Amino acid sequence: SSLESSSQVEPGTDRKSTGYETLMVTSEDGITKITLNRPAKKNAINIEMYHEIMRALKAASKDDSSITVLTGNGDYYSSGNDLTNFTDIPPGGVEEKAKNSAILLREFVGCFIDFPKPLIAMVNGPAVGISVTILGLFDAVYASDRATEMLVFGKKLTAGEACAQGLVTEVFPDSTFQKEVWTRLKAFAKLPPNAMRISKEVIRNREKEKLHAVNAEECSVLQERWLSDECMNAVMNFLSRKSNL
Amino acid sequence: SSLESSSQVEPGTDRKSTGYETLMVTSEDGITKITLNRPAKKNAINIEMYHEIMRALKAASKDDSSITVLTGNGDYYSSGNDLTNFTDIPPGGVEEKAKNSAILLREFVGCFIDFPKPLIAMVNGPAVGISVTILGLFDAVYASDRATEMLVFGKKLTAGEACAQGLVTEVFPDSTFQKEVWTRLKAFAKLPPNAMRISKEVIRNREKEKLHAVNAEECSVLQERWLSDECMNAVMNFLSRKSNL
Amino acid sequence: SSLESSSQVEPGTDRKSTGYETLMVTSEDGITKITLNRPAKKNAINIEMYHEIMRALKAASKDDSSITVLTGNGDYYSSGNDLTNFTDIPPGGVEEKAKNSAILLREFVGCFIDFPKPLIAMVNGPAVGISVTILGLFDAVYASDRATEMLVFGKKLTAGEACAQGLVTEVFPDSTFQKEVWTRLKAFAKLPPNAMRISKEVIRNREKEKLHAVNAEECSVLQERWLSDECMNAVMNFLSRKSNL
Repeated sequence: SSLESSSQVEPGTDRKSTGYETLMVTSEDGITKITLNRPAKKNAINIEMYHEIMRALKAASKDDSSITVLTGNGDYYSSGNDLTNFTDIPPGGVEEKAKNSAILLREFVGCFIDFPKPLIAMVNGPAVGISVTILGLFDAVYASDRATEMLVFGKKLTAGEACAQGLVTEVFPDSTFQKEVWTRLKAFAKLPPNAMRISKEVIRNREKEKLHAVNAEECSVLQERWLSDECMNAVMNFLSRKSNL
Repeated sequence: SSLESSSQVEPGTDRKSTGYETLMVTSEDGITKITLNRPAKKNAINIEMYHEIMRALKAASKDDSSITVLTGNGDYYSSGNDLTNFTDIPPGGVEEKAKNSAILLREFVGCFIDFPKPLIAMVNGPAVGISVTILGLFDAVYASDRATEMLVFGKKLTAGEACAQGLVTEVFPDSTFQKEVWTRLKAFAKLPPNAMRISKEVIRNREKEKLHAVNAEECSVLQERWLSDECMNAVMNFLSRKSNL
Repeated sequence: SSLESSSQVEPGTDRKSTGYETLMVTSEDGITKITLNRPAKKNAINIEMYHEIMRALKAASKDDSSITVLTGNGDYYSSGNDLTNFTDIPPGGVEEKAKNSAILLREFVGCFIDFPKPLIAMVNGPAVGISVTILGLFDAVYASDRATEMLVFGKKLTAGEACAQGLVTEVFPDSTFQKEVWTRLKAFAKLPPNAMRISKEVIRNREKEKLHAVNAEECSVLQERWLSDECMNAVMNFLSRKSNL
């Protein structure tokens, strides 16, 4: 199946998974690293990337790694939902578009709710929208102080402010971010893997049902909101502003 | 009805609601501002003010404003429940008094639980008792550093400490409090009003049933506590201390 | 019964309870103080101490004190579960050992969930494992800055970091720790005792059922984990390292 092939090892590249267009996925020392890889687009998440992240998470949940890391290539962590997703209207029109988007988003967030191993975000730079919204579903969030903007629901936070709010676990100076975080991740990867998996299971199981219910409700509300005048105008303004540059 | 009349516009005063004895209520730029207006009594909440706040909240929920602000006139935000409320004993005696007070408090807190628009507290000075207790039901709480005492359950906090505990969103120097907060409020009032209302609805609906159940239980416990020796003695001591000054 | 006798007053020692091997229990000024008293073992909790803490809590819940304090004698608050508990294998083997340990731990944590009066931890020094895990069930946690290590789930925190996370209420310099905390405790002990008891009841009742369910589930998972290779190896390594010193 496509799931298994995604975690297969290519001769020569050793532990680097191929078959991804928008991600780099590597696995070594018990750590699977999923890197968002559209740096020229500030790692905006297009439809393909949504699907590939889900595929990579499902593969990581079954591989022999202890922990999984999500990070971004380049200056940005992720600029969030690629708004060009909104411009590709199917034959069914905007209603069908909104419905399909809600189904995709619900499935996407569901993968984070259900992910069984410790999941760690390395927020290497600014983060926007959906890439910030899902941070609460990670087991730890390490941010570089280059993450000067974490934007969600119209509210801008620095990494330090997000840390004070509990959304970020710890903030590191950008100059030592990679080194300090990887030292820590390698130490985590040596902890007893079953104990970590079962600890997460015991904690997450208490709230999993509620998280899925909230996810379903929010996606249903979003489906309506995407069709509202407020949203249509905001997207139109954004895209026309861009095309004028 | 009295609800509609309370939000009517008087000729000449434009957007200032009349018909309140203990409040000032104004509405402009998409912001309805409810000001506790018994500065000589440190904005202590007497029976009339409880009823007028509920009336003003119901009017604000239906007017064309995007957000609603509660603040105090003068040096205090509010010194909490006016203890002279306890001295006006009805023919049914203290038991009836306690029962009526519990019904009023439950209805009062219920209005804050159910308020549908973004509700923001501007804590301009010291705050005590019920005025602090209900801050958790606001969507944002901005405090001046003049709010050196926020007293609840026998525990005194400064605005900064209340901020560290998550009860206050942000603390401002008193010298720039009004200017900085109003700049922010005016920006909020320009955000899409339906998106704000629906966001609050999605969040609050998850906990509304539980909040009303807790409110009912706490008011029922309070009704008993108000009749306890511990409470009677405390109120008597306070009032006799005051009359001796 | 043994419960009553444990809170009896010896002639001459006034309010000091006897009949404890691993604790000191005193009661004065409305405060019952339970002191872990195996300083040579860093107040590690052996089987006897588990049982004595439960006995002391049950006595304190019925005595005439307003509040109860738990602290440690010597340099440590507590080094957690005494790992020699694992070496005393009953005739039924390690399976029976794990089962008995799970029953004991569940009963032990249950006593903290059900304790009806304000319960305060005075964390006088480093704290490890179960002694940290149960801090969330206390009504206030005051820590000396000597508590430089609070270790739980493989993660080391200082008292200050634990305070930032909400696990510790307030941190005091060690030089003034005893004096400052006791000043505060004596003030608490003068607050209306019924109001404190009923406040705790109203808050705790909301979550008691869930806390007991989580406790049961966690002890059941622990019973399995104690029999895992990961755990057996960790305990064996620790004990053999110790015997080699």
